Amino acid sequence: MIEHKRVKKVLFGGDYNPEQWPEEIWKEDMRLFKLARIDVVTLNVFSWAALQPDETTYDFTKLDKIMDMVQENGLKVCLATSTAAHPAWMARKYPDILRTEQNGMARRFGARHNSCPNSPTYRKYASALAEKLALRYGSRENVVAWHVSNEFGGACYCPNCQKAFRVWLRKKYKTIDELNRVWNTGFWSHTFYDWDDVVLPDLRSEEFGVDGRLRTNFQGISLDYRRFNSDSILDCYKMERDVLRRITPHIPVTTNLMGCYQSLDYHKWGREMDFISWDSYPSFGADYCQNAMAHTVMRGLKEGKPFALMEQTPGVSNWHTYCALKRPGVMRLYSYQALAHGSDTVMFFQMRRSIGACEKYHSAVIDHAGHENTRVFREVTALGRELETLGDQTLGTRVQAKAALIFDWDNWWASSLSAGPSDAIDYLGEVSAYFRALHTMHLGVDIVGVDADLSGYSLVVAPMLYMCKDGFDEKLRRFVREGGTLVSSYFSGYVEDHDLVITGGYPGRLRDILGIWVEESDALPPEGAGLRHTFTYQGKQYPAEILCDLMHLEGARALGSYDNDFYAGMPAVTCNDFGKGRAYYVATRSEEALYQALFARIAGECGLEPLVEASNQVEATLRAGDKGRFLFLLNHADSVSPVKLRRGGEDLLGGKTWADGDVVELGPKDVALLRLN
Amino acid sequence: MIEHKRVKKVLFGGDYNPEQWPEEIWKEDMRLFKLARIDVVTLNVFSWAALQPDETTYDFTKLDKIMDMVQENGLKVCLATSTAAHPAWMARKYPDILRTEQNGMARRFGARHNSCPNSPTYRKYASALAEKLALRYGSRENVVAWHVSNEFGGACYCPNCQKAFRVWLRKKYKTIDELNRVWNTGFWSHTFYDWDDVVLPDLRSEEFGVDGRLRTNFQGISLDYRRFNSDSILDCYKMERDVLRRITPHIPVTTNLMGCYQSLDYHKWGREMDFISWDSYPSFGADYCQNAMAHTVMRGLKEGKPFALMEQTPGVSNWHTYCALKRPGVMRLYSYQALAHGSDTVMFFQMRRSIGACEKYHSAVIDHAGHENTRVFREVTALGRELETLGDQTLGTRVQAKAALIFDWDNWWASSLSAGPSDAIDYLGEVSAYFRALHTMHLGVDIVGVDADLSGYSLVVAPMLYMCKDGFDEKLRRFVREGGTLVSSYFSGYVEDHDLVITGGYPGRLRDILGIWVEESDALPPEGAGLRHTFTYQGKQYPAEILCDLMHLEGARALGSYDNDFYAGMPAVTCNDFGKGRAYYVATRSEEALYQALFARIAGECGLEPLVEASNQVEATLRAGDKGRFLFLLNHADSVSPVKLRRGGEDLLGGKTWADGDVVELGPKDVALLRLN
Amino acid sequence: MIEHKRVKKVLFGGDYNPEQWPEEIWKEDMRLFKLARIDVVTLNVFSWAALQPDETTYDFTKLDKIMDMVQENGLKVCLATSTAAHPAWMARKYPDILRTEQNGMARRFGARHNSCPNSPTYRKYASALAEKLALRYGSRENVVAWHVSNEFGGACYCPNCQKAFRVWLRKKYKTIDELNRVWNTGFWSHTFYDWDDVVLPDLRSEEFGVDGRLRTNFQGISLDYRRFNSDSILDCYKMERDVLRRITPHIPVTTNLMGCYQSLDYHKWGREMDFISWDSYPSFGADYCQNAMAHTVMRGLKEGKPFALMEQTPGVSNWHTYCALKRPGVMRLYSYQALAHGSDTVMFFQMRRSIGACEKYHSAVIDHAGHENTRVFREVTALGRELETLGDQTLGTRVQAKAALIFDWDNWWASSLSAGPSDAIDYLGEVSAYFRALHTMHLGVDIVGVDADLSGYSLVVAPMLYMCKDGFDEKLRRFVREGGTLVSSYFSGYVEDHDLVITGGYPGRLRDILGIWVEESDALPPEGAGLRHTFTYQGKQYPAEILCDLMHLEGARALGSYDNDFYAGMPAVTCNDFGKGRAYYVATRSEEALYQALFARIAGECGLEPLVEASNQVEATLRAGDKGRFLFLLNHADSVSPVKLRRGGEDLLGGKTWADGDVVELGPKDVALLRLN
Repeated sequence: MIEHKRVKKVLFGGDYNPEQWPEEIWKEDMRLFKLARIDVVTLNVFSWAALQPDETTYDFTKLDKIMDMVQENGLKVCLATSTAAHPAWMARKYPDILRTEQNGMARRFGARHNSCPNSPTYRKYASALAEKLALRYGSRENVVAWHVSNEFGGACYCPNCQKAFRVWLRKKYKTIDELNRVWNTGFWSHTFYDWDDVVLPDLRSEEFGVDGRLRTNFQGISLDYRRFNSDSILDCYKMERDVLRRITPHIPVTTNLMGCYQSLDYHKWGREMDFISWDSYPSFGADYCQNAMAHTVMRGLKEGKPFALMEQTPGVSNWHTYCALKRPGVMRLYSYQALAHGSDTVMFFQMRRSIGACEKYHSAVIDHAGHENTRVFREVTALGRELETLGDQTLGTRVQAKAALIFDWDNWWASSLSAGPSDAIDYLGEVSAYFRALHTMHLGVDIVGVDADLSGYSLVVAPMLYMCKDGFDEKLRRFVREGGTLVSSYFSGYVEDHDLVITGGYPGRLRDILGIWVEESDALPPEGAGLRHTFTYQGKQYPAEILCDLMHLEGARALGSYDNDFYAGMPAVTCNDFGKGRAYYVATRSEEALYQALFARIAGECGLEPLVEASNQVEATLRAGDKGRFLFLLNHADSVSPVKLRRGGEDLLGGKTWADGDVVELGPKDVALLRLN
Repeated sequence: MIEHKRVKKVLFGGDYNPEQWPEEIWKEDMRLFKLARIDVVTLNVFSWAALQPDETTYDFTKLDKIMDMVQENGLKVCLATSTAAHPAWMARKYPDILRTEQNGMARRFGARHNSCPNSPTYRKYASALAEKLALRYGSRENVVAWHVSNEFGGACYCPNCQKAFRVWLRKKYKTIDELNRVWNTGFWSHTFYDWDDVVLPDLRSEEFGVDGRLRTNFQGISLDYRRFNSDSILDCYKMERDVLRRITPHIPVTTNLMGCYQSLDYHKWGREMDFISWDSYPSFGADYCQNAMAHTVMRGLKEGKPFALMEQTPGVSNWHTYCALKRPGVMRLYSYQALAHGSDTVMFFQMRRSIGACEKYHSAVIDHAGHENTRVFREVTALGRELETLGDQTLGTRVQAKAALIFDWDNWWASSLSAGPSDAIDYLGEVSAYFRALHTMHLGVDIVGVDADLSGYSLVVAPMLYMCKDGFDEKLRRFVREGGTLVSSYFSGYVEDHDLVITGGYPGRLRDILGIWVEESDALPPEGAGLRHTFTYQGKQYPAEILCDLMHLEGARALGSYDNDFYAGMPAVTCNDFGKGRAYYVATRSEEALYQALFARIAGECGLEPLVEASNQVEATLRAGDKGRFLFLLNHADSVSPVKLRRGGEDLLGGKTWADGDVVELGPKDVALLRLN
Repeated sequence: MIEHKRVKKVLFGGDYNPEQWPEEIWKEDMRLFKLARIDVVTLNVFSWAALQPDETTYDFTKLDKIMDMVQENGLKVCLATSTAAHPAWMARKYPDILRTEQNGMARRFGARHNSCPNSPTYRKYASALAEKLALRYGSRENVVAWHVSNEFGGACYCPNCQKAFRVWLRKKYKTIDELNRVWNTGFWSHTFYDWDDVVLPDLRSEEFGVDGRLRTNFQGISLDYRRFNSDSILDCYKMERDVLRRITPHIPVTTNLMGCYQSLDYHKWGREMDFISWDSYPSFGADYCQNAMAHTVMRGLKEGKPFALMEQTPGVSNWHTYCALKRPGVMRLYSYQALAHGSDTVMFFQMRRSIGACEKYHSAVIDHAGHENTRVFREVTALGRELETLGDQTLGTRVQAKAALIFDWDNWWASSLSAGPSDAIDYLGEVSAYFRALHTMHLGVDIVGVDADLSGYSLVVAPMLYMCKDGFDEKLRRFVREGGTLVSSYFSGYVEDHDLVITGGYPGRLRDILGIWVEESDALPPEGAGLRHTFTYQGKQYPAEILCDLMHLEGARALGSYDNDFYAGMPAVTCNDFGKGRAYYVATRSEEALYQALFARIAGECGLEPLVEASNQVEATLRAGDKGRFLFLLNHADSVSPVKLRRGGEDLLGGKTWADGDVVELGPKDVALLRLN
């Protein structure tokens, strides 16, 4: 949908499964799609069993009919390859296609995302199907994107994966001695003498559960397994992509990601995708910043290039514990939130609600009632008309930000696998806290990986940079030395790429940049060990939680210090002048007020300016490009929120025009989209 | 015990395991039984290993002795077939007899209820043993009932069950196309091309646990597995029953059920049993209505025919988390509760407390102390004397009720397997709430299945009728049209027999009867999403919980409407005139006060009258028959409760005689049993 | 370390793993050890893979170097045999060495303590390694102890263990009839006809989990499995010990135990060890009495002989949920606590912090920083100097106590396996409550097993003596008859050695001694069933929790009685004069105030005198021997605690001298060690 000549507006549509319905329904669907201004459908997501009834037969009769129908009705197609769930006969005949669970339980046919990524059977038949689809439908003009498989994920612990893991390790480490070194196998008598000694780290070997949290005895092997598993699944994607590219080089290829999904290192994935697409399912009542952060992470996977909102529910999800309805206006609000963060589409799961199996109580544009007289259909139609009016104005523009937040899957894995110092260590939560502070201050922020080019930013925030991988410290050193501002926090700089501690004093490779030495860290139980721990920054007390570093200044100056316990008076927030820049360090977890106080100071120093003046219930982002500068304003509050503009412009949705400094009174759940003067 | 010519009073006794004791103890048992007026014993419940030490040997020496002894002592016998736990040698030699757990773990010898229902070994040896017992003991005059196996239950996921499941499906659906239709396998590429593609739905295939609750990807297969498993186990019962009937047609056959036990569709079971018997083990401190409801469900399995209380503890259970003693008087109270709801027996587990293994801390009539000088023995003896005095007066009479509550295992299974709209969906809880309201208002109520004849009732309550099976809507339509009153509630009418949604608008097949269209349903988190949701009915506010239907009137009139959220003002309680009758609908879960207010109105309309005027701590039921009309009054309170009689009579327990309109002052935990004038 | 001619002071050191480090680090270690006055290292704990790279090769090159180095540096060695984790090649080649989990999951290579105790492979190679080590290093003068394996524990459910279990049973019970008797297999048709019918009691057979607690259907087999498993692992220890003793009879053999560790019957282990050693890891914020009790249990395993503190953390553990730092002074305080309770060593895990795998965030004497300028190193050094000054003064002295508490693994296992009367039954908690009362009253107390000689004590406390094993009642009877005082509590005397109930009335064999008959016991839910249960003792009300015995006096007199429920007025605390002594009984669980009131009375009667007058935050113990009488005073409070001395003496740490009756003002976390006049 991105960079396809036929895409000339924000695409509006979603997953459509007519094969689950009798043909007499199809005509009615076409009528309703027109009413709602639907212009794109994702087809063929789960049809493998129908397309390939046995080993040698392929049957495209019904898909041909469907493709003809949608073409006749002027709909663009995002065409899926149907490889996210294999047919039952394949599982029966070739059990190697089935996954094995972490406890060694071999799975049988069932569910979806059920294929072992290292199964020869899977690879053979999945690429064959992709090829047939490309050959058959690749020349249709309305196919605007390939949608490989669906929500790739999970993990497998079968014998094929074990063999593949050994190959992967051998390729990475060359010698068994190097393997022993990076996994520190001298510990607990784990020395390997042969690649075949290595078994997968799972509940049968190195891993175990405590209080619902997975732990491991050997961080090195567990971390490498996660990398291997992400790579194995990525190989499946790449295999199909290569087939598709070979036959239809003109059609961009994507797969729908899942936001902050821990099992796959999406930074590696982003590099292999023609454009990013993802499925957004915020929980009812969740902080809007969570979804904003997921959008921002997704955008960062491909250097800020516009992405596709591939799925969202028009009304209700079926798999939440309590499936609350999206309140009136919220579906529209969330749709614009996607655009605000860089999406060029608004797409739903799904077009018509199924009648059997586990998603039948998930909303659809067309409900079980089957007609247009529903609240959900009316809201979809209103949005469809609005997007029709909007046209291509914002298409291809990019979100603007001078601040970057570092988010890295290796860090996420390594910190959550760590044995100590605290079960409360939560990488995603830590990064989220810093994101929320910046975003609710209306400072534009990107989220990038450690391979990103930082030169365009004036502020880089790397919270809990537990694993400072080879070279990244040098990148940060250069960034600060040349005038950038860095912010980091506790549990940073401990280990290198293989989770081996950098000896000599924490935070290891970051020590000179931050100008501190962390001697010890005190883990606090949630209720604060009977004492609420605090520190004082600029005369105000803030809570200290999770971990308190006990540190010594080595060039930095203390901006705040602990109030309690035997480390009262020790520094809690520091700043180090380094080259032309500065490096801040927050030695504990605190609350939003602290982060905002700190960023207020830093923003002043760095020349970062808020996009607008408004409460933290208002989201503001700026997209810009050849077509202009577009300010998105989203009011998540249930009441009117005033927004003071820095610069005026025309509201493309309401039609009003605002002058510089005007105050927009944004209604509850309402949106404004200003083309700035 | 029911319909056996030798049964002339309320049978009093229970499970007796003399084979666990040296013979010198037996004589003492006989002495103590006489003291306590014991007149029936259940023998041979767990003796398979003793009776059949190997494949070809049967040894009845000890059982002969026991049978002789109890006969000489004038005791009637409920003779069990001992097939609820197979011998160790059988498990070692024929592992097919062992069950497999949901996660694929093959069991080994141990526990009880341990045989796979589809094991050829089990079926062969279980029927052989039943036959030998029938031939050997069937002519004894004091054998008043056969007790097949014991507390049938559980489930098995072994290869034999998988094969049997395919046979069961083939028989039910004839073609694989029909199977694909009813399971909606077009979803997620699940199309089956061969019966052998089908695997059992378990943790290896379609099911998974979330927060301790089992979920499934395919409701259809999971629902059918539950039906299949219940049928498989029922087949084991029927197999033994047929053997016993063939040899001893004069002895009625039963098996002891377990009240509201989810795994077996007891309505199907009831049809195969000569009389219902069940084991009642209310928890300490539990609402007495739970046990009352279980009694009522049990009675309803065989159209109100008197049943047998087969087991209860005389003092304490051993398997509760905290095994509190039954307080003085409570054992008597619970015994009369059984009679009040239709039992014709009072029986215990067990007569003498065992000294080893897991039930040794479960009470018995004869305690470890071994003598009669215990509180429990004294209470048992007092009750034995009372029942002796009571004689056969109430025997065979039937509980009277003009209101029926619908309870259906398919609905229970289907609603709890549903993916959405809420984890709080609780079919048993919903039915219980309506039962409690009716029962504590002292309105007689039956609980029946969807196959029941409704013509004798003036009120039918069908809460959460999620699955409205083929034909049942027509039965309800006729019932209301002809003047009956129907009450239903939220999450009703969604699906047909295979959990496929009835499209066109909820509540599907019930829509015309109820005169409403439910467009959407909002699931509320337990704490009410930050807002306590309420609705107003007749000027009073009541809580709205779990699910709030957003509905439109299609003929019905609103009796109450929501107070909050974006659906404030929409109807929450409706009434539809339909034919000569009326259909009420409660669109959310509320509290007892609402249900009672509603039933007060409906009772007036239907001519239902409370049996007595008394607090909700007093239970009242009426049994009637050729022998007269008997009013049971049970005071569950710890203080005196006044009960205003509508009609007087003689108290068969206290001896007093009461006139119409008298007020009986019922002592704490006390009971009155009036033969009404 | 104990009874070795070269040990002349409190040994100070700990686990040292130089093989994990390059040799250039070793020299630095030696320098730092000298600074800190380290004089002993435990070597070779996890080096099997390094020492034996394949089936026939042994390579001691590096260990030779290490041994030479530590010898040159004057360090004593506690030499481990490295058998606590087998090599990867061994697991691959001989899978019988791997354990099987309770659910039947066969383990693969990984973790530690990973060998099946009944694996022929394990036994063959473990004893071979022990032999090689003994032959190679046994003549080195500085080897002061053998450290067999490491923290033995866990359990295995593999086919080899199943076979061994049958052999163990056959040896114990001789005939299958006797097996059937003691397991009461008449229950639930469990009669065994052949030893091969017996399968291990696990999740596949007799055991199951409810709410995270393991339950069993057959207490007898589950109890015997625990005995068997403890014996199997003990056999592994004995096998290595025998090899070592044969070659180096002059070096004492130990293995590091783990305090109150449920899986191993340490009383049986103690008999096989030359001296006791153990690893102490109290949680942050835990009551100091827990650790005091563990020390006391450990001391009691070998009749009070001094033991070794083999491991403690100098700063932080890595495996707690929240790894709080040991506050300043606490490491010293805990070190003296070990000495106070009978240790003759202070040893750490570990000397240098590892850089990879799961213990890298566990403290060490030498931190990742790698130098001496850390708080932890400074505290270690200060303590090292203090112990150097102390010399051998306290070495070999024994803790003095006239009161004994009974602690028995069979009781722990049997009571926690019991089905009923309450999930709140907690043997360790019950014993701890009595220990805490005695210990905080500063009355010396030992903890001993049922095989101990009681003749030296004036008070024996046997709380919750659920299983009164054959002969132990007679030992208690004699003890009381001859003038001793016994205290017991609820849930006592129920069963004999095989968990078979002693019929005739609880508390069975203890009934005559205690002079009571317990007719029933009422289990109370934690919140007290809506009513807070209490009893009155000497005019004061105390809480009654967990279980309330309903008992009758049979010679005893009531000292207190229940206040509530239908058993109000029944005795709750009794005293029975028996021979020249007395037997007290507490019929329920209460709070510390009750236990202290009771012990105050009993102490008066028995002539027990508190060592000092001080608050319950002060710990006081007395060690005595040829070298004198030493009073240890430990202040666990965060503030100054006054301690009134009965007898004066010189403080060996502070240097001050105190007179009889003086009040010592002990600083927060401070310690005094007085050589009494």
